[in-house]
Formats: sequence, C-alpha cells, structure tokens
Amino acid sequence: MQTLQEKASQWSGVDTADAFAIDDTNLFQKLGLQTFINLSTNFYTRVYDDEEEEWFRSIFSNSKKEEAIQNQYEFFVQRMGGPPLYSQRKGHPALIARHRPFPVTHQAAERWLYHMEKALESTPDIDADSRVKMMNFFRHTAFFLVAGDELKTQKQQIPCKHAASKPAEL
Amino acid sequence: MQTLQEKASQWSGVDTADAFAIDDTNLFQKLGLQTFINLSTNFYTRVYDDEEEEWFRSIFSNSKKEEAIQNQYEFFVQRMGGPPLYSQRKGHPALIARHRPFPVTHQAAERWLYHMEKALESTPDIDADSRVKMMNFFRHTAFFLVAGDELKTQKQQIPCKHAASKPAEL
Repeated sequence: MQTLQEKASQWSGVDTADAFAIDDTNLFQKLGLQTFINLSTNFYTRVYDDEEEEWFRSIFSNSKKEEAIQNQYEFFVQRMGGPPLYSQRKGHPALIARHRPFPVTHQAAERWLYHMEKALESTPDIDADSRVKMMNFFRHTAFFLVAGDELKTQKQQIPCKHAASKPAEL
Repeated sequence: MQTLQEKASQWSGVDTADAFAIDDTNLFQKLGLQTFINLSTNFYTRVYDDEEEEWFRSIFSNSKKEEAIQNQYEFFVQRMGGPPLYSQRKGHPALIARHRPFPVTHQAAERWLYHMEKALESTPDIDADSRVKMMNFFRHTAFFLVAGDELKTQKQQIPCKHAASKPAEL
C-alpha cells in the first residue's frame, strides 16, 4: 500500500526533496510577513471571484474570506521559517484533519494550484527562486491532501480492548 | 461547537500559550539531537515493556519499536526548532490523520503522558525548565489528538458537485 507521501509525489510529480526545498532557505526572513499576507489576500481574492469554476468557489462559500486569508498566511509563515502564528492561535496545523470538511479532489487540487500560481506571479517581492520552491511545496502538499481525503472513505476500525488495531501504512 | 484547540485545552488543563511555550526558546539547539533520540528511546522502551497496562502496549504491537522511535524524535526535533527531519522523510506531520489507526482515548492519552513524564525524568540533559515546557506541549497535544480521534466517528459528508459542504468548526 502506498503511503500518503508516495501518493503525493506520484500525483503531483514533485518528489519529497523538491517539495521540502522550502527549508533550504528561510523564506520568511527573505520575504517578510507583508509578502505572505499579500500572497494569501491575492489568492483568496481570486478564489472568491472564481466565476469560471463555480463548483470550486462554492467549496469556500461557508468560510469567511478574511479568516481563510489569516489561516493560510499564518500557516505559511509558521511553516516557512517564521514565528508559529498558526499554532499560537489554533494549535497544530493537522492539515489533513482540518481539510476534512472539504471535498479535496484531484480536480480541486489543480484549481487551487492554478489560482496559487497566478497569485504568486502577481505578488511583488516574490523572486523566481522562492516562487519555484513554494510552488513545488504547494503542489506536493495539495496532492498530499488529496491522498488524505481518501482516508475519509476508508472503513472505520473498531477499537477493541484486548487486540491491537492494525495500523494502516500512512 | 468547540474547536479542536478548545477541547485540547479543556481536557488537558493546559492553555494554548503554555502548550506552545516550547517556541519561546529553541529547544533543539538547547538540548541537541542525541537528547531527543534518548528521550524517544526511553519512552518507547517503557511503552513496549508496559506489563501493567497490557491494553496500552497492545496499541503499538503492530508497529516496529525502532520505527516508532525514529518517527517520534524526528517529529520532536522538527517541531522544536531543529531540521525538518520528519517532513524530509515522511511529509507533513498531519498529526491527527496519522493517529487515525490508533484508538486515541482519554485513557490512552493519560497512559502515554505517564510514560513520557517518566521518560523525561530519566533522560539526562533535560533541564527542569525544558521539561515543564515539553510536558505542557505533550499534554495539550495528547488531548488535541483525543479531540481529533472523535472526528473518526462523525458522520461522513457526501461531497456534492454544486453545493458547498458546510465546514465543521475545527
């Protein structure tokens, strides 16, 4: 059985080393807080205005735009070398569990990435090297979440007091 | 509805600020890699030898001890200011999703914490201040995972092409 990571690499076409090349430099120190705020604002402005793909926009229709922006940039800042803003406010990122309410399909991942690529291109101060690193991270992560989404449809295990649950290969 | 974070704070008795006080200092730089390896080795040696509470030991009976040790210390190192060892090998921590195969009950959290407290005490080079910070982080995280475990029994939402899923408050 493939692990989450293996599925993410296969579907995204981005291997693990490239996905986590974001850790080779401290992108937060390089880009600064305002750039991350601008990126997430650009991204969600595009998403909430997505009239071409109404099904995609509708995924976010029960979420407040301002909150979506804050959740996203705080996570990016924390993961890319900055202060742990996300955890201080909301706890562990727990990426798969927190995406549980949303239908994270291959198609949704591609649309998310389409908007993120445009948002990266339209955010000043993000140099080409940072953009490539971030895009590889985002692409791998998006398909990691698609892999995580599949767990929702797996048969639930019933905990048994005297027998161990067989752990799935995650 | 309570968020994961609110449940974690209530059940653990540790508020968010105390749980993430691990970020006030760089514990990896302070303690060093070998201390984290020793801690996780001490912890899992206790767990795999837990003859008092066989139900707890049985949770791990399908996992290899060496792998459990490596997964744990790599995550701790990454989360406490060190290199992202865990993600380079396995991807995002995705703490709740990766605990999905295990029955993470209140009772299991308490037993995990009992062993971790003993392991911290028996690992040289962990000073009292670091021990308190780590224990608060572990206690809060353990009950965050108990809160996450409850998601498994929630009714699955059926993704609908033209309607948004109502996102749960996570």
